[in-house]
Amino acid sequence: MEINPSGFYEILSPRCAVLISTVDKEGKTNAAPFSFVTPVSSNPALVLYASAPQRHTLANTRETGDFVLNIAPEGLLDKLWVCSKAFPKGVSEIEKAGLTERKSKKVKAPSIEECVGWIECQLEFEKEAGDHILVVGRVVYADCRDEFMVKNEFNVSKAKPVMHIRGRRFVVAERVVQAKGE
Amino acid sequence: MEINPSGFYEILSPRCAVLISTVDKEGKTNAAPFSFVTPVSSNPALVLYASAPQRHTLANTRETGDFVLNIAPEGLLDKLWVCSKAFPKGVSEIEKAGLTERKSKKVKAPSIEECVGWIECQLEFEKEAGDHILVVGRVVYADCRDEFMVKNEFNVSKAKPVMHIRGRRFVVAERVVQAKGE
Repeated sequence: MEINPSGFYEILSPRCAVLISTVDKEGKTNAAPFSFVTPVSSNPALVLYASAPQRHTLANTRETGDFVLNIAPEGLLDKLWVCSKAFPKGVSEIEKAGLTERKSKKVKAPSIEECVGWIECQLEFEKEAGDHILVVGRVVYADCRDEFMVKNEFNVSKAKPVMHIRGRRFVVAERVVQAKGE
Repeated sequence: MEINPSGFYEILSPRCAVLISTVDKEGKTNAAPFSFVTPVSSNPALVLYASAPQRHTLANTRETGDFVLNIAPEGLLDKLWVCSKAFPKGVSEIEKAGLTERKSKKVKAPSIEECVGWIECQLEFEKEAGDHILVVGRVVYADCRDEFMVKNEFNVSKAKPVMHIRGRRFVVAERVVQAKGE
């Protein structure tokens, strides 16, 4: 069945639904879910998120030069949904959603306590791509709750990270399988 | 637990593990799994994959100007793993893995018959990012097996797409949940 190209991301799914937390130059914090997100380089460690031009996350990233990717588990889905709403700039979605912010290790943007992992990034460069802006950040600190990291492996079955399909539809990642063969 | 930044993508996971199929200027086809992949724009419809500079997928994309993202279901995991091996340029991983190639609708790169969805793309631009190259393509045709699309919604529970964590570890996406609230 042919799919309208503008909706092609329906089948390029589910995608990691991370909460991106930022702070503006007045110190007002923000968090919003993004799923157009991917690692792009290992050394240096670089990550990319694509943002619509009007998003506060992008404005804050430009103002203060950093952001945090917070890995959200299943239990935070409804709070993540609250964070997707359009609040006026300066209103903290973190507070509105009943989430807790805490100081990050190496960046000005806060981290969200209730998440299972945190990737702190400094803005490296941006580039326009269609109706979005590619924002590439350098990972300066990455952290995961001890209980979900076993021998340097992320325990997805236990962490149950939230993935996005489209609209309200998400997937909980949990069934881990191993590729066989050489 | 602090994570070495170069391994940060362990927790930015699982990520869609798509097979990218391409063809070189001599007509030799290729397929390789990638998980540093994301939609980046809706209108125009743009998708991005990040490639190490030496990958044949990148060379072929440059030579012939297009590529196809093939959405792989659980049943193809071991074949996808075969496609991840380093065969000499000109050897078709599609054949080595026992997969079937078929003509695409709008691009020169082939599509892989056994997959559940296909996103045909033409190279739009590329940009260096650390040790990888960002390759941005315009979606010119997107298609999904009828049985996995119901009322314009991708039935993830039935399609069971494969997601990558790291190394041999993958996740099968299947449990769909809905966000509650306004």
